[in-house]
Amino acid sequence: MERFSPEAVFADLEALRARRPLVQNITNFVAMTVSANVLLALGASPAMVHAAEEAEDFAAIASSLVINIGTLTPAWVASMKTAAREYGKLSKPWVLDPVGVGATKLRNEMAASLIQLKPAVIRGNAGEILALAGSFGGARGVDSTAGSQAARASAIELARSTGAIIAVTGEIDLVTDGQDVVSIAGGHGLMPRSTALGCALSGVVAAFAAVNKPFDAAVSALTVYAAAGSIAGRRVKGPGHLPAELCDALFHLTSNELRANTKIESTAA
Amino acid sequence: MERFSPEAVFADLEALRARRPLVQNITNFVAMTVSANVLLALGASPAMVHAAEEAEDFAAIASSLVINIGTLTPAWVASMKTAAREYGKLSKPWVLDPVGVGATKLRNEMAASLIQLKPAVIRGNAGEILALAGSFGGARGVDSTAGSQAARASAIELARSTGAIIAVTGEIDLVTDGQDVVSIAGGHGLMPRSTALGCALSGVVAAFAAVNKPFDAAVSALTVYAAAGSIAGRRVKGPGHLPAELCDALFHLTSNELRANTKIESTAA
Amino acid sequence: MERFSPEAVFADLEALRARRPLVQNITNFVAMTVSANVLLALGASPAMVHAAEEAEDFAAIASSLVINIGTLTPAWVASMKTAAREYGKLSKPWVLDPVGVGATKLRNEMAASLIQLKPAVIRGNAGEILALAGSFGGARGVDSTAGSQAARASAIELARSTGAIIAVTGEIDLVTDGQDVVSIAGGHGLMPRSTALGCALSGVVAAFAAVNKPFDAAVSALTVYAAAGSIAGRRVKGPGHLPAELCDALFHLTSNELRANTKIESTAA
Repeated sequence: MERFSPEAVFADLEALRARRPLVQNITNFVAMTVSANVLLALGASPAMVHAAEEAEDFAAIASSLVINIGTLTPAWVASMKTAAREYGKLSKPWVLDPVGVGATKLRNEMAASLIQLKPAVIRGNAGEILALAGSFGGARGVDSTAGSQAARASAIELARSTGAIIAVTGEIDLVTDGQDVVSIAGGHGLMPRSTALGCALSGVVAAFAAVNKPFDAAVSALTVYAAAGSIAGRRVKGPGHLPAELCDALFHLTSNELRANTKIESTAA
Repeated sequence: MERFSPEAVFADLEALRARRPLVQNITNFVAMTVSANVLLALGASPAMVHAAEEAEDFAAIASSLVINIGTLTPAWVASMKTAAREYGKLSKPWVLDPVGVGATKLRNEMAASLIQLKPAVIRGNAGEILALAGSFGGARGVDSTAGSQAARASAIELARSTGAIIAVTGEIDLVTDGQDVVSIAGGHGLMPRSTALGCALSGVVAAFAAVNKPFDAAVSALTVYAAAGSIAGRRVKGPGHLPAELCDALFHLTSNELRANTKIESTAA
Repeated sequence: MERFSPEAVFADLEALRARRPLVQNITNFVAMTVSANVLLALGASPAMVHAAEEAEDFAAIASSLVINIGTLTPAWVASMKTAAREYGKLSKPWVLDPVGVGATKLRNEMAASLIQLKPAVIRGNAGEILALAGSFGGARGVDSTAGSQAARASAIELARSTGAIIAVTGEIDLVTDGQDVVSIAGGHGLMPRSTALGCALSGVVAAFAAVNKPFDAAVSALTVYAAAGSIAGRRVKGPGHLPAELCDALFHLTSNELRANTKIESTAA
């Protein structure tokens, strides 16, 4: 079995469904319900827990964590840091979703301070990854105007400078550790028209990080999501029912569907 | 008409639809939208109001309150206590949903301090009720690994020690005042795969507490939900559309549907 | 082309879809996901950003703002005021949704203090507009028991005293600048049974305020929403799927659908 292949991805999905990892989410208010539903449909056990006072207790029982700065305030970021440190102490993986970085100084500072706490994976759109890499990203709130291919060089650079796996999502997704770059095709053009599906994907990366190494986990998460998104997109006539159809597609996703709806390619950086 | 029967439950539902009680929700961020939609579909008038500064004013106009500690922080718990005290002063009922109790010390302390303020009903899954009763509950975040039958003895004990009606939900639901135990069958296996449906049910208990005594209200709420959940579950092919179908089933629920989709049994404790 | 006509409304919609304005939302927890999805379906680019620390940076890049006091606390209101002031400095429009005003002293005070910061449009139901105008509104939490026609005189008075455009939504919607009153028919009886659709509409008003003057923007927003709501309402069998169908109807809304599903009338105040 090739390392980055539909077969390897589906093996991760089966491991996830069997183990049902408890995934802590410190995410934004818009994404909470969608993220929980996506994780439940996938087969994980999500918990939305953000109080600093229970960070230590919760890190002890959960398998992984996602931190998403979408609706950040300084108080929430303090909780995020406390939680990230607890996962660090226990060598458990956590994923950073730097929503809207580049749009405001607060976001830039908060994202930078979280990256110092060593996320296993950083997942963002091209604009966010460009902004993080210090390039001129043209971040525009929470949307991205740049394509993910444009962020390829920045992603590789960011992976090298931070030690994190970088996952850039867009029409074509990229995952890199700074040495290899895996590209994943799939998804559907309606996905950006339904809120928080990218945020929920960061939770999916965290769920897979409970069953495999960060690089493989990110590839598996993005591939599963690309396949389910592609299936869901074809079943709707607009963005309205997309989150529900995405959950159903994740819930039922088979090995054949995975193979038929995505394409994975691996190259050197 | 028997006290705990589909006929009595439907009479409560008709009273609720006619009166349209204003139900205050201090609930978690994941559950807010779902809870509001479930309560609107049921025929209640939900309000999500959590500021301590308006607790007194709001308790004066609302009929009942649900407090849910899902995404708790100490600041929110302070608001919850203020609101619980206001309802206590006015002898209006409030319902506690101790989400995730047993998972962290913070949750155990906060749940214990809220129970001292005398909720009319406590609704949880088996793990949460076991944890509250001081048994070894094996609570696992917000999910439950124990069945509701396993929590029967703990629920009876908890009802006796707190004076609250205890409602334990799972494949078979139980409601007890420490003397009698009513069991309710219904629902659907997909319900735990859609987030916050248990939280929304606690809101439904609060809505029924506006039209009947706490024991009867809990039985009516769980029975109506079990019937609607069963109907909704058969209409979907996965968890994605379940919340929407649950709302539609609640909105249209008839006496015949209620009778055909649930089974209520009453025994001594 | 008449100023308040389906043709003028559709021209605004096309301008909005072409320009895709970045709309900041400081809204309540119940409405965030629905509002974001409605704005995305409409063709705008929503951002849920509420930290006072990034208010200045965000006002600089966004086109308009909606402030909704649904789940207010004093800390959030401080952020709302900071944001409103930044938009004021830049002469960018912002919309106030005074959810539940009249129900508690806190809401009355907070709404009054926000109105002093000069919203371009205030959108509420009849009870809220009556309460704001100092009439006896009988506000009942977040619902309205008064019809929008009953609020006509209050809306005119409120427009004159505040300088804001007043939009009252109900079975028939009204928009007034204190001189002219535009009434808009459409929508669907199920809309009040699905949470936060009114809140999301306030976001839609803000989106249109990025492409036209406040009065015209409010008329365009309410007309587009009334048409899409009417279409969506006919496609569902209960409130459950209404938000998803509303998004699909907004996403695909054509000039012919707009004309066929609404009626706009303009009279002197």
